[in-house]
Amino acid sequence: LVVAKSDSEEYVPKSIFYYLNYRNTAPTTTAAQYVTTNMGLSRLERVIPGTRWLRGYTGQFVVADLIAGITVGLTVLPQGLAYATLAGLEPQYGLYSAFVGGVVYALLGGCREVTIGPTALLSLMTSRHTGYGGESGPQLAILLCFLSGVVELLMAVLRLGALVDLISLPVTVGFTSATALIIGASQLKALLGIRGGSGSGFASTVRTVVEKMPEARVADSVLGIVSIIVLLAMRKLKDIKTPPEATKGRRILGFVFWLTATARNALVVLVTSFVAFYYDQRGERPFILTGTVKSGIPDFQLPPFSTVLPAGGGINGTSPVQLGFIGMIEELGASIALVPIIAVLGNVAISKAFGGSGINPTRELVALSLSNICGSFFSSFPVTGSFSRSAVNHASGVKTPIGGIYTGALVLLALGVLTPYFQYIPKAALSAVIISAVIFMIEYEVIRPLWRCSKRELIPGAVTFVLSLIVGVELGLLAGVLTDLAFVVYRTARPLLTVSVAGTSLGTQYILIRPNHSLIYFPAVEWVRNVTSKAIKQHGNIPVVFDCRLVNEFDYTAATGLQMLRKELEKKKIPLIVYGSSSEVRKLLQETLKSSLLEVTNDDELEALLQELSAADGGGKHELREVVTPLLSPDRAPPIAEIEE
Amino acid sequence: LVVAKSDSEEYVPKSIFYYLNYRNTAPTTTAAQYVTTNMGLSRLERVIPGTRWLRGYTGQFVVADLIAGITVGLTVLPQGLAYATLAGLEPQYGLYSAFVGGVVYALLGGCREVTIGPTALLSLMTSRHTGYGGESGPQLAILLCFLSGVVELLMAVLRLGALVDLISLPVTVGFTSATALIIGASQLKALLGIRGGSGSGFASTVRTVVEKMPEARVADSVLGIVSIIVLLAMRKLKDIKTPPEATKGRRILGFVFWLTATARNALVVLVTSFVAFYYDQRGERPFILTGTVKSGIPDFQLPPFSTVLPAGGGINGTSPVQLGFIGMIEELGASIALVPIIAVLGNVAISKAFGGSGINPTRELVALSLSNICGSFFSSFPVTGSFSRSAVNHASGVKTPIGGIYTGALVLLALGVLTPYFQYIPKAALSAVIISAVIFMIEYEVIRPLWRCSKRELIPGAVTFVLSLIVGVELGLLAGVLTDLAFVVYRTARPLLTVSVAGTSLGTQYILIRPNHSLIYFPAVEWVRNVTSKAIKQHGNIPVVFDCRLVNEFDYTAATGLQMLRKELEKKKIPLIVYGSSSEVRKLLQETLKSSLLEVTNDDELEALLQELSAADGGGKHELREVVTPLLSPDRAPPIAEIEE
Repeated sequence: LVVAKSDSEEYVPKSIFYYLNYRNTAPTTTAAQYVTTNMGLSRLERVIPGTRWLRGYTGQFVVADLIAGITVGLTVLPQGLAYATLAGLEPQYGLYSAFVGGVVYALLGGCREVTIGPTALLSLMTSRHTGYGGESGPQLAILLCFLSGVVELLMAVLRLGALVDLISLPVTVGFTSATALIIGASQLKALLGIRGGSGSGFASTVRTVVEKMPEARVADSVLGIVSIIVLLAMRKLKDIKTPPEATKGRRILGFVFWLTATARNALVVLVTSFVAFYYDQRGERPFILTGTVKSGIPDFQLPPFSTVLPAGGGINGTSPVQLGFIGMIEELGASIALVPIIAVLGNVAISKAFGGSGINPTRELVALSLSNICGSFFSSFPVTGSFSRSAVNHASGVKTPIGGIYTGALVLLALGVLTPYFQYIPKAALSAVIISAVIFMIEYEVIRPLWRCSKRELIPGAVTFVLSLIVGVELGLLAGVLTDLAFVVYRTARPLLTVSVAGTSLGTQYILIRPNHSLIYFPAVEWVRNVTSKAIKQHGNIPVVFDCRLVNEFDYTAATGLQMLRKELEKKKIPLIVYGSSSEVRKLLQETLKSSLLEVTNDDELEALLQELSAADGGGKHELREVVTPLLSPDRAPPIAEIEE
Repeated sequence: LVVAKSDSEEYVPKSIFYYLNYRNTAPTTTAAQYVTTNMGLSRLERVIPGTRWLRGYTGQFVVADLIAGITVGLTVLPQGLAYATLAGLEPQYGLYSAFVGGVVYALLGGCREVTIGPTALLSLMTSRHTGYGGESGPQLAILLCFLSGVVELLMAVLRLGALVDLISLPVTVGFTSATALIIGASQLKALLGIRGGSGSGFASTVRTVVEKMPEARVADSVLGIVSIIVLLAMRKLKDIKTPPEATKGRRILGFVFWLTATARNALVVLVTSFVAFYYDQRGERPFILTGTVKSGIPDFQLPPFSTVLPAGGGINGTSPVQLGFIGMIEELGASIALVPIIAVLGNVAISKAFGGSGINPTRELVALSLSNICGSFFSSFPVTGSFSRSAVNHASGVKTPIGGIYTGALVLLALGVLTPYFQYIPKAALSAVIISAVIFMIEYEVIRPLWRCSKRELIPGAVTFVLSLIVGVELGLLAGVLTDLAFVVYRTARPLLTVSVAGTSLGTQYILIRPNHSLIYFPAVEWVRNVTSKAIKQHGNIPVVFDCRLVNEFDYTAATGLQMLRKELEKKKIPLIVYGSSSEVRKLLQETLKSSLLEVTNDDELEALLQELSAADGGGKHELREVVTPLLSPDRAPPIAEIEE
């Protein structure tokens, strides 16, 4: 089976493989269970889960995390600058948003690959509130970050983390594949050195790339494509296994191979930067470089609770508008709910795609929430898990979330000291890193087994994939989940019913209707009645036995429906017998049907009751009594169905 | 039981009683089934279902329908005028909207109580597009009516009529009760002769009534309250039963009683109009009267496909704007989808509340659709079933939808000829008619049985009721349905699982996990894995038997989850045995788990397999093998859960 092939366990974030490989503490988790799952943890480790990572945190782990942390840091620097611009803020705000999340997540998070920071989606959503000019843009963005964190904390308290269960495997695959395509397309521009173009959607990006292909810069393209080839080749080094009986030299070589494969992203960035530096020293600039980053570490301060919209900026008129806390909340409006929802959806999808055993959705939510709340004290705009950087993190062989601390340190270093050195990183090299990480996230392998054994599950996956590409990943994900849930509802509305004609040993025939479904809820009521009516039309007016042996639950609407069915049948002198209902179902039916309920619990009782009814009715013959409604009676007129008969 | 009490079968639209008393042709209806249900119908009756009403359409039916039709007509005249004003149109458009629906519905509809025409909700929604002045208001409204009909036809073609199944009994009760309160409150103003006040919601109406109580007009209040008392008393006449052995005189008296009770609305309107006329002749006007209605029958013409927004009206500037078809569609925007959805929801709720056997949701949709499409040729704005007029129709003892034709004829007559005579109808009398019809729609009786046997079902009902009053009936209904469906999803996500420890005859113990649920779908995956993990922690590393005998369906995600569970257990050397899966489930599991699937179909096989496994493993003892991950391996680091153990 493709999905279980062994190499998918290595570098590539095959969400289909990792998808279920985590343990979800569902909303029913009790305090006792929590203690159980935390058995063997020290007091410190229980309060700050991140400290458990320090157990056995040996040098090799440090090296792996450091390499990954630096690689992610090298990715988040240009991304942060770009996303801040996308959010309508000055570039440094992207870096301000890039270091708190990693530290908070290292302390509280449970999935080592997840890297929290600025993302394209949240930047876009933030940009709706940054167009008024002056200091109002960053102030609104920072308050939005703070409020998002508060809403996420609320979601954690209300145990809404279990909503992840609603995302099925096909939807996850559709979502990750579409995300990979969107990220890949967005990086294609930088890879080929194409500037300009409008829109950040998949279609508009692809259109820009195609239209501007003649403007592609040769040096950038060559550098980018060579980088991708080198990265993919270096990734292959990991497949060279060292046999256990190998010599010491062979084993050292194996380690070097592994180290090279793991650090390949950092190596490519370093080498290409040196190339760019070399040309720069000669006075040439063949590549588009990351460029200078404004220095300075942000102040630690309260998020702003008031702001001023300057005159003439955005929708306001000719005089500045002073906004208090309430005014800012009104301006942010629906974003206060939408941004956290999108952030959580994204974060959940990432931890579902990358998470191993032990992911606790509620803890993830708290980590995300505090990343935003703490971030807002360092002038961050809203952050969440970044799929592309998590992929880079994973591909770089990160071992624990402590990698996020190294990333954070690198970002702070960049803000404070390293700025002049990062300017030489060619953008094409960074794009190559991202593209060679995300192309493996496109998963077509799942289509074949689904096609073979469960075609209808392709639909939610396809809906998610297509809508993610066309209208955006958040709506695509939502639509996929709703498509999935629509089928759950459909199955409840149209439960499988077995209809058969059976006979007692004395020859009394009856219609046996058995729901092969454990729930008979309101959407199924009409369906059950339809099937029963059809069975009576087909087999004549013989007793109807409703077999509840497989039914666990009835709701009140369904019980009322059964009561209506009984009344309808009564008009035709057809007895309705309920067979083998569970005690809960019986309680509900007795409440609704009262004394009129004919009920049996086993075959003997059924046979006895049928014989009794048959004898009372004249030896098994049922006469079809015509239903006549007196014309002058104030009662309801004969309904169509009876007129037809 | 209150809900089944016999008197509820008589006049009062107890939706709880009538709720399920219809037959729904579900989306699975085949052509063959359609022919079956239409057996015995002539060709004409199949094409135009309404002609079947003419079978046995005797004089008494004519009288009953005529009385009901006229009573509804007398209600729709002032309502039409009021709703047209609410929609921002001239009064006569309300009457233009009031006659086509009745005729079309008589030909195509299946529920005799439903009366299609202008409603408060759709008038409000239409009013969003009528503020530009000139002829653009009616032209946009008429085009919206046409397009609503087209969208409804699409819904009929796509078989979306079965969506009615998603409305449970508690939601219906909450919806009808809230609607009754809203209508009652809205009529209170007219009943007490209170003018003015803002807003059409429940809260604002009640506030207006309370605030303006001192301004209530004595004559109107007395007339209104006396009318209600008389109506309720006359309604009681119906309860006087004529014994079968009664004399001829007694039987004639019984008929007179019934006729009086049935025609009570028309009688009250007639008598109060004469009183008003009497005072008018004496030069006094103690009551607020309906007032004059502009005469003239609307032209038959195509809906307008272009319009002009005059200068200075609404948002447009200083010069008139010419709108073509596309421009008008852009102006109508989301209303083109929203108006039909709200119309269908309302219509569905009404036919569910009033409908007897034989309601076909698709046919209802077609009838509603053609009412709008045909209406738009007679200058109608969007129409749907009116709950209040349907209640009046029902209370007046309508026998067939032909009553709608009489209503239509009356409206046309009013437009053409009768206008001067209707001006004397006191508004308070019409309000009394409506209030005494809708107060019986408030249903508190359902609360007790629900509280006793299914408390959680009170929640969707309460959500519907409260939100309908606060934010409007359409959102209330939607929220109620979603609350109901959330529980369906919850039950699928948290299926009942029985966990027990069992032993073979030779003493091999195993954990038996049995889902008491017929579906194991994606939302349940984590739940099943959690329960299994807990069971192993509790009972030790003994074989796990997953009992699928009650499970009908697995989806791919769940099968993958089982595969992950098997891998997890394999690490601990715990075999996972699947017991008694159905052929469909087995196919899916084999596809996902391949050769690694341990499967048994009965107890003997299970016992044999367990013995075999036990022997292979050393006599039933399972040793806990430690999971060691080599540090330098590129594989994933040991997840937390294993570190903890």
